[in-house]
Amino acid sequence: MTKTDLLIINAKQLICPSDDENKKPELKIIENGAIACSQGKIVAAGHSTEITEKFQAKDVFDATGKVVAPGFVDPHTHPVFFGTREDEFELRNSGKSYADIAKAGGGIRFSVRQLRQASKEQLIEHALPYLDQFIKNGTTTIEAKSGYGLTFNDEIKSLEVIRELNKIHPIDLVPTFLGAHEIPDEYRDRKQEYIKIVTEEMIPHVAEEGLAEFCDIFCESHVYNTDDTELILTAARKAGLKLKIHSDQLSSGGGTEIAAQLGAVSADHLDHVNSESIQSLKLSGTVPVLLPGAVFFLGLQKYAPARKMLDQGLPVALATDFNPGSCMTQSMPLMMTLASIYMGMKPDEVWLAATAHAARAISRSDSIGILKSGAQADIVIWNIPNLQYLPYHFGINHVDTVIKNGQILN
Amino acid sequence: MTKTDLLIINAKQLICPSDDENKKPELKIIENGAIACSQGKIVAAGHSTEITEKFQAKDVFDATGKVVAPGFVDPHTHPVFFGTREDEFELRNSGKSYADIAKAGGGIRFSVRQLRQASKEQLIEHALPYLDQFIKNGTTTIEAKSGYGLTFNDEIKSLEVIRELNKIHPIDLVPTFLGAHEIPDEYRDRKQEYIKIVTEEMIPHVAEEGLAEFCDIFCESHVYNTDDTELILTAARKAGLKLKIHSDQLSSGGGTEIAAQLGAVSADHLDHVNSESIQSLKLSGTVPVLLPGAVFFLGLQKYAPARKMLDQGLPVALATDFNPGSCMTQSMPLMMTLASIYMGMKPDEVWLAATAHAARAISRSDSIGILKSGAQADIVIWNIPNLQYLPYHFGINHVDTVIKNGQILN
Repeated sequence: MTKTDLLIINAKQLICPSDDENKKPELKIIENGAIACSQGKIVAAGHSTEITEKFQAKDVFDATGKVVAPGFVDPHTHPVFFGTREDEFELRNSGKSYADIAKAGGGIRFSVRQLRQASKEQLIEHALPYLDQFIKNGTTTIEAKSGYGLTFNDEIKSLEVIRELNKIHPIDLVPTFLGAHEIPDEYRDRKQEYIKIVTEEMIPHVAEEGLAEFCDIFCESHVYNTDDTELILTAARKAGLKLKIHSDQLSSGGGTEIAAQLGAVSADHLDHVNSESIQSLKLSGTVPVLLPGAVFFLGLQKYAPARKMLDQGLPVALATDFNPGSCMTQSMPLMMTLASIYMGMKPDEVWLAATAHAARAISRSDSIGILKSGAQADIVIWNIPNLQYLPYHFGINHVDTVIKNGQILN
Repeated sequence: MTKTDLLIINAKQLICPSDDENKKPELKIIENGAIACSQGKIVAAGHSTEITEKFQAKDVFDATGKVVAPGFVDPHTHPVFFGTREDEFELRNSGKSYADIAKAGGGIRFSVRQLRQASKEQLIEHALPYLDQFIKNGTTTIEAKSGYGLTFNDEIKSLEVIRELNKIHPIDLVPTFLGAHEIPDEYRDRKQEYIKIVTEEMIPHVAEEGLAEFCDIFCESHVYNTDDTELILTAARKAGLKLKIHSDQLSSGGGTEIAAQLGAVSADHLDHVNSESIQSLKLSGTVPVLLPGAVFFLGLQKYAPARKMLDQGLPVALATDFNPGSCMTQSMPLMMTLASIYMGMKPDEVWLAATAHAARAISRSDSIGILKSGAQADIVIWNIPNLQYLPYHFGINHVDTVIKNGQILN
């Protein structure tokens, strides 16, 4: 008998996403499953009888009647902001468009003004309750973007806040530099000057200091066009940052293909992606990260063509896009419901999209979003009878217990 | 100083829906508000300074930074069933329609087969966790329908289950007889015979035994047409039951006008209601109960024309339609989000719709859904900064504390 720290036993279903990037993705379901954990890692996962024959532990969690799965990975969030925008939500619902609001100085530009006035300490205090809500709803790792600073100092401040949050909060944050999120008000008529600051000052500093692992850009005709995108992502790649892109969200633009050609790890949104761009994602191995919550929250009609991508074997991932303007939620289960209803995704597909594929979208496919020996012991016990149930019984929090690095959190 | 049982003080906002049926509905917001409760009732609600000058209590709840509102009233639910239908959710999302599934013996007909096999004790045990979820998400009273029995014994069994649940669970259940929910399989070719059982056997018994306060019917061309509806609702009215109707859900049918003419308390769904029917609701004082969750969950496009009704001064209410087939949620906040996005309802309108108007839809406007002297002390403390915030930050449970009949529940 091997001694371990924690045994989770008798799970009605153990949801094990495949982690082999070279095979067709699949979900293996173990009935009456168990997991053994030691020193924050998974030691073994399998049938309860097998696991309890080989392993013992001082702490044993009985998951009878429950579903046990990897903690959700949310590969696209904007958690560093200062102040919410419920007034814009009301305006949009009474007929104003997201673009109208942005033109009037609202939207991202409003959040930029707010963030610039806030200290690092204020931003940390502001973000912490939101991180708690991620955990409470089953998410154990988030990708976290800067992008409401848009000056050298305010972008660095945002990334330092993410670094500090990662230290003091149980959730893991994977930092992304998004200096090209909007055009700052003071550079609206001289975008190229700002792009120069991004490429020549911000990116080199961010890379040198290890403040971000990824560089992202909002590629859309009214913000950064495909030329800007190529410039910025190329500079980021040179500096050693991995690449992400916001593309084809409001219109079909060509950004997705550029990102794919540059070897981006993920291309996000893709509501208006065309067949050529999907093909380019396939060739480059870029993960499509779909954000149905933003389509829903903005009251739009066109969801990303997930079925087309899935039918071509792409590892579709889901994310919340958590941010105060276009998607104010941290609920991955609700994203799974939206993906089921509006994008025709199947239960096993939405689970893969929230675990193994989401991990792949942030270059963590060997350590999170999976339940196998050596992976981080980030595990959620769900109060549901089967995996189909989670997207079905919507709007209700079904989390029973969250385990992060082998520690029971609640 | 008057002694009371419980004081809630320092609420950032106290949300007080108007309760005067003769005036234009409105929401009064008291900043820095307080409530005094005694013996399960509200004694007074007002500014914290006023209330604390007049009242004292052994229990004082400090609601600093929080919003305090009446517990939500959910005026349309189907909580007595046995077994869930996540497989149908998957089928629908892969392209099968609700009608296709019903034709193949699924849908309500599946739930009928399940319920008939279950004992009263099994049904009670099955329902209790769902009632807990209502409370946890801020709902303190639900209307609860039978309708998965469709035989004399099984409909009575369902209503007896509701009566028992009302005794043993903190939530209040207002019972509705819905014997005309579907046509039972054994009467598919002789609907009139079943209608005779409903009108001559079930309704008289239900009324005599006080098993239901309301009688409801699913009026839709493939189930009960307008003639059937008139027959059944007229019999119910004669027996002393108040009336409700499921109408204009899948098509515009005329049921709404019949219900209005018969003085129905509410007409529910109304996704395809026309202007004449809206006018008839106005004349009769019938409350429109809108169920955006069902439109969402069924992947349909057409939401009820809430703005038309609101602009004519109708007291629009919202409900979850909680049921295992067409809307598996108990979240009133999520219904408020859907109503905001898809029906253009404003923050004060969605709050009224979930409180005072919902109470009116179940003839309880003097006792629940309001915060005034004499009302039930059904109160929810919300962890939100203002009333606009609840529909905005969606998919997350913002309930801090639920107070039911003056008792703190969690």
